[in-house]
Amino acid sequence: MATTKALCVTAQAPVNIAVIKYWGKTDEKLILPLNSSLSTTLSMTDLCTTTTVMASKEFKEDRLWLNGKEESVSSGRMQNCIGQLVARSGLLKRLGENVEEGKAREYHFHIVSVNNFPTAAGLASSASGFACLTYTLGTLLEVEGDLSAIARLGSGSIYGGFVKWVKGEKADGTDSIAVQVAPETHWPELQILVCVVSAKHKETPSTSGMQTSTETSPFLAYRAAHIVEERMKQMEDAIHKRDFQLYGELTMRDSNSFHSTCLDTYPPIFYLNDTSKTIINLITYVNKHYGKIKIAYTFDAGPNAVLYALKEDTPLLLHLITRYFPPSSDLAHFVEGSGPKECGVESIESLGAQLKAKDASVEALLQELDAKFTPQPASIQRVIHTTVDKGPHVVTDDALCLIDTATGLPKA
Amino acid sequence: MATTKALCVTAQAPVNIAVIKYWGKTDEKLILPLNSSLSTTLSMTDLCTTTTVMASKEFKEDRLWLNGKEESVSSGRMQNCIGQLVARSGLLKRLGENVEEGKAREYHFHIVSVNNFPTAAGLASSASGFACLTYTLGTLLEVEGDLSAIARLGSGSIYGGFVKWVKGEKADGTDSIAVQVAPETHWPELQILVCVVSAKHKETPSTSGMQTSTETSPFLAYRAAHIVEERMKQMEDAIHKRDFQLYGELTMRDSNSFHSTCLDTYPPIFYLNDTSKTIINLITYVNKHYGKIKIAYTFDAGPNAVLYALKEDTPLLLHLITRYFPPSSDLAHFVEGSGPKECGVESIESLGAQLKAKDASVEALLQELDAKFTPQPASIQRVIHTTVDKGPHVVTDDALCLIDTATGLPKA
Repeated sequence: MATTKALCVTAQAPVNIAVIKYWGKTDEKLILPLNSSLSTTLSMTDLCTTTTVMASKEFKEDRLWLNGKEESVSSGRMQNCIGQLVARSGLLKRLGENVEEGKAREYHFHIVSVNNFPTAAGLASSASGFACLTYTLGTLLEVEGDLSAIARLGSGSIYGGFVKWVKGEKADGTDSIAVQVAPETHWPELQILVCVVSAKHKETPSTSGMQTSTETSPFLAYRAAHIVEERMKQMEDAIHKRDFQLYGELTMRDSNSFHSTCLDTYPPIFYLNDTSKTIINLITYVNKHYGKIKIAYTFDAGPNAVLYALKEDTPLLLHLITRYFPPSSDLAHFVEGSGPKECGVESIESLGAQLKAKDASVEALLQELDAKFTPQPASIQRVIHTTVDKGPHVVTDDALCLIDTATGLPKA
Repeated sequence: MATTKALCVTAQAPVNIAVIKYWGKTDEKLILPLNSSLSTTLSMTDLCTTTTVMASKEFKEDRLWLNGKEESVSSGRMQNCIGQLVARSGLLKRLGENVEEGKAREYHFHIVSVNNFPTAAGLASSASGFACLTYTLGTLLEVEGDLSAIARLGSGSIYGGFVKWVKGEKADGTDSIAVQVAPETHWPELQILVCVVSAKHKETPSTSGMQTSTETSPFLAYRAAHIVEERMKQMEDAIHKRDFQLYGELTMRDSNSFHSTCLDTYPPIFYLNDTSKTIINLITYVNKHYGKIKIAYTFDAGPNAVLYALKEDTPLLLHLITRYFPPSSDLAHFVEGSGPKECGVESIESLGAQLKAKDASVEALLQELDAKFTPQPASIQRVIHTTVDKGPHVVTDDALCLIDTATGLPKA
């Protein structure tokens, strides 16, 4: 298979967390969103998807392996995505392939994708996986036109830092694109804690959930038409000015608004559970205590909390989370990533003492909180301390390639 | 105190459950609601508040005893209510009292109120208590004008059956009144299960909660201006036609919509907990299974579920609740009221067998549900099976009077 060796691309993509949420489409096929949205790109050091795509005439059909397990490629979303990328493929046109949608292709794809974090964590792994797949396949196929439009198909982005996905006005979706609002270097003080909340039940998948919401929730229609666009402007402004008060308030309000539309859906969709709500109540209490926003929360289509704080307040945040949502064992390894050290945390176990030594008023806050919040062991599974970072990129290191190009199958 | 003996009135009032919810005021003092609402009056056999009010010149101040405990009458709401009733009192004017608001009164009131259900149940006991107080005091004071306007002050109603509270248009609130949509005899097939859900935390009080929502939730403003009035018309229609499909759908949608506005509040307010959500998911599943609405839910400002079903479907509902939310012990006394017998239930313990014997297809449904729902013992404390019934009324039986008119104090 020497001739097809070049038709193989490996890329890595990060997880994005929206602070102004996207929920609902105006066009299911073109994936045109009901409203604009704005996301932060999390560091790939902590959360990363790697995908290799290989194209060959010798493959009889498209095949997909996710985290070591072969999965079907027959879903509408997957077919739609592959079909659209093929239709715009400069590479396949050059190779004389018939790229019209629905036509039989000579070239087929083998796709292998792995996450460096547990899929079971429910961390939008399907979204980041899809984004990485779209990016990798799009790169391999040399898709023509605005590369950022690829992002739309995978709900991801080709940019790092703070990225908005503009709703656009055109029916064909050509102006619904991703735009970088600020690069990953713009606001280094901003720290992110991903709290993976233990969930009993499987949630409503976001694709079907947003469809039901679009059909049944009057609040979602109102939100898209009258709330989000103004909030987008304010949020861009908050990011440009590194105004954490405004950033935090808008982030929390938009998370509430999004989950509100889920509850307004008929039948209702619930993503927040009792642990999520306790996290929200804790943060509300702390912010009220200080008379300013020290911590902000956002929740995607699941119970996991994504918390934002400035570097100076992150040790307090880390202590609050480990104090009220401790692991059942192994506190030392509960928080992952190099974040705590970079924020001046000596050890998670002694953080309470460190904080009190530095600022005596912390004692009073903790006493107030102890009276209101009972520690709930094991209700948070793990905490990933991360920052805003780069977007997806192609990797050329052969060691990272997931396909054995001699066989076209996943490396053992 | 022989001369004051006649200045004593005892009344009993039921609990009302709104199926189109009231949340938010346009006037805190006149208690003018942001939108119209519609309630069902529950039977006083099962849930009832009794209040005695005595007026005397010999009382030095107003005093209040709730469920055997003296409480302060200094709250703004209480003062506002007493002040407005006094201002419109035909009796006090006849007696030569200065009824202007804020003026010193010669007459003061002793108020004694008890519920026949635990206050701790969180069953809108404050609302029904307040309604009963307003009704009793209003009756004693011979309040002038439309008696139904008294209802507004106590969030209650002087009518039984299905009652709407019209928002009104006038700034002085004179057209914001209660109107009976249908009497208590209109729809006897309609059964009501009040499920008292175990709650860990005290909820946000509804008075302050609705104020924060009014100030911060764009969805609440939208709901009041564009959703509720149309839904009111449909709901009246559903009740007149005894159309359970429409009644159930509107009830569930409006409950979702109301809780959605609570979540959209900043900071957000949560009334539904994980048990509430499991109840909603169970009912959604059952309705989907049958392809029609068999059961409808509504939740007030707390985690308790109020479930509606027609008589023929109530045995199934009773079995589902006891199967998936069993008490930790004493199943036989878990469901209170004479409802089960009247719906043909032989015993709660053998209800599963009775249902399967009558309709073999129940077996399949229960197997599906067993695969999805794990029984959660003790997550529901008690179930009260009741029906729509009469409104508040004055009682003349001396045995029911709660005040010893010789001393002016609560009977021992």
